[in-house]
Amino acid sequence: MEPAGRGRVERRLAAILAADVAGYSRLIEADEEGTLRRLKALRAEVVDPKIADHKGRIVKTTGDGLLVEFASVIDALRCAAEVQAAMAQSNAPMPPKPRIEFHIGIHQGDIAVEDGDIFGDGVNVAARLEGLAKPGGICISARVQEDAAGRLDLAFEDMGEQSLKNIARPVRVYRVGPRPVSRAPLRPSGGRGRGPRSGRVR
Amino acid sequence: MEPAGRGRVERRLAAILAADVAGYSRLIEADEEGTLRRLKALRAEVVDPKIADHKGRIVKTTGDGLLVEFASVIDALRCAAEVQAAMAQSNAPMPPKPRIEFHIGIHQGDIAVEDGDIFGDGVNVAARLEGLAKPGGICISARVQEDAAGRLDLAFEDMGEQSLKNIARPVRVYRVGPRPVSRAPLRPSGGRGRGPRSGRVR
Repeated sequence: MEPAGRGRVERRLAAILAADVAGYSRLIEADEEGTLRRLKALRAEVVDPKIADHKGRIVKTTGDGLLVEFASVIDALRCAAEVQAAMAQSNAPMPPKPRIEFHIGIHQGDIAVEDGDIFGDGVNVAARLEGLAKPGGICISARVQEDAAGRLDLAFEDMGEQSLKNIARPVRVYRVGPRPVSRAPLRPSGGRGRGPRSGRVR
Repeated sequence: MEPAGRGRVERRLAAILAADVAGYSRLIEADEEGTLRRLKALRAEVVDPKIADHKGRIVKTTGDGLLVEFASVIDALRCAAEVQAAMAQSNAPMPPKPRIEFHIGIHQGDIAVEDGDIFGDGVNVAARLEGLAKPGGICISARVQEDAAGRLDLAFEDMGEQSLKNIARPVRVYRVGPRPVSRAPLRPSGGRGRGPRSGRVR
């Protein structure tokens, strides 16, 4: 949705990160108070500090979601990878059911800005990419992959062109994960390296 | 080329416009003083004011070229279309040979910024797109076309995927022109409309 009266709308290129909590309704149903308390703590201790570290601007929050704008694709993706790695770490000691995990989607594009809110295809695509991400996962568009490739120590799995709801043209989507430790032959006396869930970010 | 020491380099998404004068050496050879004087006047009266109108930042100039950064793709493309239309108008009374015409290329991407200069694939692609543009013409990447489509009253001609020198992946290129007046049947008593060289920008 674009705001009316395009004449004087400010526009800018931005990386847009959309996040929401996987299975939020289920979590709330099972333990409303505990879920809200833990989500609040995760926001305060993990998510919001990471966003600030990478110069993101929280555009809006919903009960279980966040929309964040970054000036750079690299900042947005680094932030997402660090958030998912930190969440995975904090979830590790818990049984699967009550874990709070985010889906994250990132796109970049020319967005319209009005009264601090943001509009346009760029925002809609980010929200659709979020919907494609697994719990704890990140999905990005080809534009983001192209801008980030070779600049971040992450692996990109091509999911091909996807038709996204209410988006006219298909979008090539990549799933993001930590880079596998090595594809080189294993050295018998090598170090142990870091596991594939380490979320290491250069 | 990326600056050394990526650690603290500022990055941001930007629309990059690269322009240079078609046949500059030939023009200089034919009439050095006259060419430089006219180019200076065109810069002062047409190009620089249009860039300022659309909030562009001139990153650098060479003898016959310009590199300009915009926050928005829409601003960059509107600026380019207006510059080319104004140049065409100022050239119209002249014979073809001494005309000063620009090639313009526009791309958008995540660029590195250091001491006011800009680096990265985004800049290199813009320069290659400029090289594909005809004198008086504009070439843009698919990203720019996607961000601008439906928002500017311009026509985009798909030139397909092009291999650009020193750019690893092929880039889909579009040639930009003013939108044809109408594809509807001609009305015998209709107004004359505006010619295809009018460069009308909404």
